[in-house]
Amino acid sequence: MTSGSLEDIIAHTKAYGFLFPSSEIYGGIQAVYDYGPWGAALKERVKTLWMDTMLKHHTKIVGLDAAIFMHPKVWEASGHLEQFDDLFIDSKESQKRYRVDHMVEEYIQTHAVSEDFREKWQRAFAGGDLDQILHFLKEEAILEVQEKGNATNWTAIRRMNLMFPTQLGAQAGNQDTAYLRPETAQGIYVNFLQTQKSLRLSLPFGIAQIGKAFRNELIARQFIFRMREFEQMEMQFFVPPDEEKTWFSFWKEARRQWYVALGIPEKNLQLMPHEKLAHYASDAVDIVYDFPFGFKEVEGIHARGNFDLSQHERASSKKIRYFDSRRKTSYIPHVVESSVGLDRLCLMILCHAFVRENVQGKERVYLRFPPYLAPVQVAIFPLVAKEGLPERAQRLRDELKYEFAVFYEEAASIGKRYTRQDLIGTPYCVTIDHETLADEKVTLRDRDNMKQERVPISKIKDILKVHFSTQSFWNSLPA
Amino acid sequence: MTSGSLEDIIAHTKAYGFLFPSSEIYGGIQAVYDYGPWGAALKERVKTLWMDTMLKHHTKIVGLDAAIFMHPKVWEASGHLEQFDDLFIDSKESQKRYRVDHMVEEYIQTHAVSEDFREKWQRAFAGGDLDQILHFLKEEAILEVQEKGNATNWTAIRRMNLMFPTQLGAQAGNQDTAYLRPETAQGIYVNFLQTQKSLRLSLPFGIAQIGKAFRNELIARQFIFRMREFEQMEMQFFVPPDEEKTWFSFWKEARRQWYVALGIPEKNLQLMPHEKLAHYASDAVDIVYDFPFGFKEVEGIHARGNFDLSQHERASSKKIRYFDSRRKTSYIPHVVESSVGLDRLCLMILCHAFVRENVQGKERVYLRFPPYLAPVQVAIFPLVAKEGLPERAQRLRDELKYEFAVFYEEAASIGKRYTRQDLIGTPYCVTIDHETLADEKVTLRDRDNMKQERVPISKIKDILKVHFSTQSFWNSLPA
Repeated sequence: MTSGSLEDIIAHTKAYGFLFPSSEIYGGIQAVYDYGPWGAALKERVKTLWMDTMLKHHTKIVGLDAAIFMHPKVWEASGHLEQFDDLFIDSKESQKRYRVDHMVEEYIQTHAVSEDFREKWQRAFAGGDLDQILHFLKEEAILEVQEKGNATNWTAIRRMNLMFPTQLGAQAGNQDTAYLRPETAQGIYVNFLQTQKSLRLSLPFGIAQIGKAFRNELIARQFIFRMREFEQMEMQFFVPPDEEKTWFSFWKEARRQWYVALGIPEKNLQLMPHEKLAHYASDAVDIVYDFPFGFKEVEGIHARGNFDLSQHERASSKKIRYFDSRRKTSYIPHVVESSVGLDRLCLMILCHAFVRENVQGKERVYLRFPPYLAPVQVAIFPLVAKEGLPERAQRLRDELKYEFAVFYEEAASIGKRYTRQDLIGTPYCVTIDHETLADEKVTLRDRDNMKQERVPISKIKDILKVHFSTQSFWNSLPA
Repeated sequence: MTSGSLEDIIAHTKAYGFLFPSSEIYGGIQAVYDYGPWGAALKERVKTLWMDTMLKHHTKIVGLDAAIFMHPKVWEASGHLEQFDDLFIDSKESQKRYRVDHMVEEYIQTHAVSEDFREKWQRAFAGGDLDQILHFLKEEAILEVQEKGNATNWTAIRRMNLMFPTQLGAQAGNQDTAYLRPETAQGIYVNFLQTQKSLRLSLPFGIAQIGKAFRNELIARQFIFRMREFEQMEMQFFVPPDEEKTWFSFWKEARRQWYVALGIPEKNLQLMPHEKLAHYASDAVDIVYDFPFGFKEVEGIHARGNFDLSQHERASSKKIRYFDSRRKTSYIPHVVESSVGLDRLCLMILCHAFVRENVQGKERVYLRFPPYLAPVQVAIFPLVAKEGLPERAQRLRDELKYEFAVFYEEAASIGKRYTRQDLIGTPYCVTIDHETLADEKVTLRDRDNMKQERVPISKIKDILKVHFSTQSFWNSLPA
């Protein structure tokens, strides 16, 4: 039994209706993907599971759905307008574009660099002087290592903000620049007080939101891992200042266990503390998964102190204070954030689900999704498309279709139909044959072990209910 | 019993956690709103009901989730780049901006204009010559009626495309203009063939999608009815050319009944055929609802012929044909579209739900959502926050919380807590009192008739399951 390479996953998900390059008939659009029917269904189930975790399992969290457009001052206050940019450089020889920090990191990983080298680099990068950074790249011969022999034929280093700007309003001179949000979190912060007051919530409580965010990545590769348009699932947990550390520990563990509950082996997961903290963070850890291209971040958990709410209080001149009736004092709450990259999470689930195995000399590929995440939950087949079998099968479909995601198909041999369901990860198939009409029994086929058993049609619904229950998932999480 | 004005709805939904003006601490951003916790929950339930209608109730439809960013050529082919714009004019006296077509429509509605007037206007407007249109406005004295006495102090008429442009890529000279999609439908059309092939679907079948769309409305009023960022629920049904008429009739009726099933009285709904068909349509009808500001469109049902797929075939030079194995021929399918404005639909549901009535001399306001759409489905209250009642109430909450949207509260008098749940439309409240600890019975309170009955705690789950079932909703729709 082997897992798939990234190329396997890309090819498989395209061929079987999970992920399509966006606008492909026009040659595509770099780093943007569309979710096909089964990808959309998978993503929807992941969203529901995450939202249920936040709103139902944890009982101190409410939802929110803030718009993508926000007032431009939000991004001034958050620091995104000033500090959210990448440095890049173009080779005039190859016409290739490189991100400067990625280039140096790659160099560090493949060369035995000195402590002095690291310090010099960090000083230059943090300083932000583009000429000085270019000087460093030339002095240390990093450019000629990147492109063999090309030491000098490069553009200057340039800086680009990652936010996409657009114009609200009518025409030049009478318009406001607005940005597509680069993260969903700010939508929660600016609505914190309004939410707390209109629902009369007391600390600690969380606000959870799923939504699109946009970053103008210069060099976006690795499929849906890094896209220009992506989706975040973020939960901001507001706490009294002196409880920040406790809640950071709580969420670190609660979130790690969430991945274990999903069936990800602990050896494929790591909690990776940040070496360098971002300007807003007082503590931070990434949950990283062993993708085909290495251990990479799926989720970040950050103790953000009162940085964001303070910034918004200052920039808006509106008090953002919570009156703590137990402590008899007002303060700006502190925040612990859980921020998941939804597309990365889907990629993780796809990578983990992809199985290629040898069955009696033949290769078999299937997706072993947890049943509650499978795009199609049960496929219903009449053995042949005649003699009353389709009618009986459709009756069963209509009995099951509101409670489960049902797929109905008549065409092709039954073996081929099973194989196709394996390829999209359908946990159960039900076949209606001639005997069914006499004995009211059907064949229930299990994706993982390919076993078939004959069960009364009247029991199918209850059997499936047990298989698709998420109760054991909830039971394995901290409350 | 009276319903609410638009002002009532705006004030109520802000005060009780449904809808907040976006970035309000910064003074807001015109025509953009954020959904608070209860608004987000309502919207989520509406999305689920619509998607279940498409994917589960109707068995010939699959989902899709295309990105907001698409290749710019998509909007050339669809006609949006050339034809999707508004004309506007500014008064130099009042500094007010007007949409020209709205101004003339308003004039027509309030003045007895001649047939000749109408014809002249339609000719000028269709001709698109801005000077000629201005000449018409001046000649007919429409400008001075709009602003009393101001016949001449106006700017020229200008034209603005409604799409928001942004830049993908690194910097000027090396970038592509991309547009925020003004409708989700094109994401379905460009993925039609890939979807059909990877799922091996045969005609007729539909593709359903929910997602954000963006239009740079010059003058956006009426709350969430017309926003710059909004959400669409669109289903494109692909059919053999000779079945277009039949399916248009089917969807017209199926969609109308969907609103009736939601509990909207037939007198508040109308099917409004389009007087003038858009360039892509061969037949079209709007489903309009009696909002506080008049009958306005919630959904459009359009027979679009093969316009869009043909355009994309031409522009991309890729064949978009379906091989019909029964008819033994290839063709470009025709399309019948159902396009719902999700935010408008939520506004319709809020308007219909808002009830102000007089109960024994006191005013009572509540939201009578259908139970399956209510943001909070059941509130659980310990009568007092002591003597073991909270613990017993929390045990019940934990038994119910995965199956229902549960709200738990200890503070305030029980009457106040009931009132607060009425204001957000919670259909049922369950109160645990001292007797509960002895007899294992609780008080179940009904939102609509305010009746309270004492029921065994062990039966609560089954009682609620019946109340929240959508089975009768499904039963009232055509299959």
